[in-house]
Formats: sequence, structure tokens, C-alpha cells
Amino acid sequence: MSSVIDLLKSHRSIRKFTDQPIEPELLEELFIAGQAAATSSFLQGTTIVRVTNPATREKISELAGNQPYVAKAAEFMIFCADLKRAGNYCEVYEKSFEGDFTEHFIIATVDVALMAQSLVTAAESVGLGICYIGGIRNNPGSVSELLELPKGVYPVFGLCLGYPDQDPEIKPRLPLSVVIKKEVYNEEGDKEMIKDYDEVIREYYRTRTGGGHGISWSEQVAVLLGEKSRPHMKGFLAEKGFKFK
Amino acid sequence: MSSVIDLLKSHRSIRKFTDQPIEPELLEELFIAGQAAATSSFLQGTTIVRVTNPATREKISELAGNQPYVAKAAEFMIFCADLKRAGNYCEVYEKSFEGDFTEHFIIATVDVALMAQSLVTAAESVGLGICYIGGIRNNPGSVSELLELPKGVYPVFGLCLGYPDQDPEIKPRLPLSVVIKKEVYNEEGDKEMIKDYDEVIREYYRTRTGGGHGISWSEQVAVLLGEKSRPHMKGFLAEKGFKFK
Repeated sequence: MSSVIDLLKSHRSIRKFTDQPIEPELLEELFIAGQAAATSSFLQGTTIVRVTNPATREKISELAGNQPYVAKAAEFMIFCADLKRAGNYCEVYEKSFEGDFTEHFIIATVDVALMAQSLVTAAESVGLGICYIGGIRNNPGSVSELLELPKGVYPVFGLCLGYPDQDPEIKPRLPLSVVIKKEVYNEEGDKEMIKDYDEVIREYYRTRTGGGHGISWSEQVAVLLGEKSRPHMKGFLAEKGFKFK
Repeated sequence: MSSVIDLLKSHRSIRKFTDQPIEPELLEELFIAGQAAATSSFLQGTTIVRVTNPATREKISELAGNQPYVAKAAEFMIFCADLKRAGNYCEVYEKSFEGDFTEHFIIATVDVALMAQSLVTAAESVGLGICYIGGIRNNPGSVSELLELPKGVYPVFGLCLGYPDQDPEIKPRLPLSVVIKKEVYNEEGDKEMIKDYDEVIREYYRTRTGGGHGISWSEQVAVLLGEKSRPHMKGFLAEKGFKFK
């Protein structure tokens, strides 16, 4: 196939980085590569806030649930869904701002993720490692204050970038037949496939952590969906103007 | 830099495809490459429904706002955010399903976009062209019926894939300084930069369409945010169990 496909297949999150900085020219190339991703309705709804101040990095590291690599990676940035930049022009063209629909939230959030993933692929293609930081949504209000995010802008996730100082295993994914359906959604055979996959994941955790928890995939995700997850998000987003109309 | 960065920078949507099919082995590689993208909390919240039935393709083409390439591209698939697959295991592990929080919606939607964008990059690396189809959200209920999507699953976007039969220009993006901020969000200088950029986009449309509308970026996005956008999405998603708690 292609070396790009091999690159994509070799992704794993990196949580330990060397001290080597990323050259400004390279960083700019990564941003441009990310920006070239598709954008819905040409909104270009992403703003990236690059955080270099060590004290701010330290604070965000704590706010994200004590993830030290947020402070230590060569680069850390927060990807924001931004309806303000475009929304500013409603007044110019004599329209009232109506950008608080669920659909607007989807458009902006998808835009952010597409740009991030292209940036990530660009980074990995030059030997950098990355780690997405969803943990910033533990305290989105405090993160927004630190970054002075205005109404119409919310922090979707953070991203650590740097040269890897570890070489973790690739984490096995669900069998393709479970994830790719033909013509219609059906779950035929999935239960058995997932049962086998659960064993693969147990084994992955056991070997990776040298006698670790050995939890299965199904057990992990049952916890994720069987508990309230960041229940503050709705209220936080409403304050930022994302009202899910 | 790297050839991957050049590849990413050369993205443009393709809306006209040759008749050449995509080999099954290649398609499988694209799926695997996509699946290797990061996934939040290891949810793996994406299900892809690959649609090959010509009548269904034709119907979706109409439902998406008469986009003929949906019917004509070598491959068309719908990317779904899927909380059902994982949610099934709440009962197994004696938990009540709580996956109707705004946060769960974000996790699943971001998962879908990350996987899609890696699949897209894989596809473009072997000479395929792609077009995201957000238009399926014009009629998400009808699309869901055609695909028999159960509760807990919603169609985020479609994707056309095929060998390009056109060679459109790359669409210029916002200036980097407008999109990348340092330390904090601020809009200093953005207005002037966007004014110049608006002219670039006017010119892009004028030349591309051979005397076309010549609309600016700011005017386009003012329309997007100055009008109700797919107001049915909230009710549709609620029916599917995405309740934005």
C-alpha cells in the first residue's frame, strides 16, 4: 500500500518526551497541514491556542487531572471550537447571530477534530509523538479563564507534541467486522468478536504494565457509559453560548 | 519537510469521480488506517456503514440535498457516532446506562471525526479523492431509517471516495495568525487580515466558477451563523438518546 498508511497504522499516544524543542518552521508547517483539512460549510471553526508559559502549562496539567506531560512536552496547545470569529460578521452583514443551534456545535466540533487529526499525522510523519488531552474538559471553565476564551469559543481538547522518549506498543483496535457494517447497522456476530477482543485487551494491559489491571474493553467502556460523565459540560457550554437549540 | 505534509497541504474536495472501483484489499487498509487514530477513553465510538446498494445511494444523494456524487462515487459510507456498542455492556456489568450526557456526545463525535480524517489521509495517499457529506444531516431521520440505525447511534457525516475525474484548485485558508493564538485568545489584527483574505476568497470563487458569485469568506459564514441551521437536529438526537444532559 503506501508508507502513509503504514504511518497511520503505527499511531500510539506518547506520554514521555525528550527535551528537544520543535523548530518554529516545522511547527508552522504542522499548522498549515492541519488547516488544509476539510471544513464544513467553509466555516474554519478552529482556533488553536499555543501555550508556552510554564506556569500556565503547570496549571493546565493539574486541571486536566495531573497529566505531567502537559507541562513537559515540547509543545502544548488547546484546540478550540470557535463560532465567534465567524459570528462577528453577522452584525457586519446585518444579521442577528443565530449560531447557538446543535448543528452549529457539531460543525465547529467536527472542524476542530479534522484539523487536529491532520496536524497529528503531519507531526507523526516527521517523528514527533502526540497525546490528545480530553482531560481539559474536567475543568473547562478554569482552562477558558487561563486562555481568556470569549463567548462563542470552547476548548475541545489539548494536544501534547514532542519527540518521543518512549516506544509504547500499538493498542489493538476492535475487529473490523464490528466497526464496519454493510448497507445497514446490525450487530450479528459482534458479541462473539468482542468477547475474543476483550481477551486481547486484557492481555495488552497485563503485558504493558507488567502485571497491571488486565481490564477488558467492554468493562472499560461500560464504566464510561454507566456513569455520569463531566456533567458540568452542559452548563459550561451554555455560558459560552452553545445552547443546543 | 515531509511528503506527508505536502500530501496534507494538497487536500481539496473531489466531487467528480471516474468509474474505477476501489479494490477490496485497499478499502480494508483504509479502514484499518482510520481505526488506528486516537480514541477518547478508548471508546472507539465510530461505526461506518458502507452503502453499496444503488437505490439507497440514490435516495441518500437526494436526502443530502441532491449531491450526485453520493450516488456516483466508487464508495460511499456514513460515519456514525455509536454509543450503543459500548452501552450494551452496561447491563452486563450491572450498571445503568448513563451515556446521555453532553460529554458523551462530544467524545463520540470527536472519535468519528478523528477516524474519518485518518481514513481520508490514507485514501488521498494512494491517489483517491474524497468529499465529506454533511448534507446527510438535512434528513438525519430518513437516513437513519435507510441504514436501520438504532438508538444510541447517529449519522455524523457521509464520505464519498473514488479516483478523481477533476483537478480543482486548493481553497485558500484563513491566515495562520488568525487561527493560531499564543498564550491567550485575542483578536488583535484579525479584522485587517480577514479583510485581505476576503478578497482572496472572492477571487478564488470568481476564477473557479468562471465568473461565479465572488462571495467573501466573512459573508458566507455570516449567513451560516445568522440563520437557523438544521433546527431538527436537537429533536432528532434526543430521539436517538443523545440528550445533552
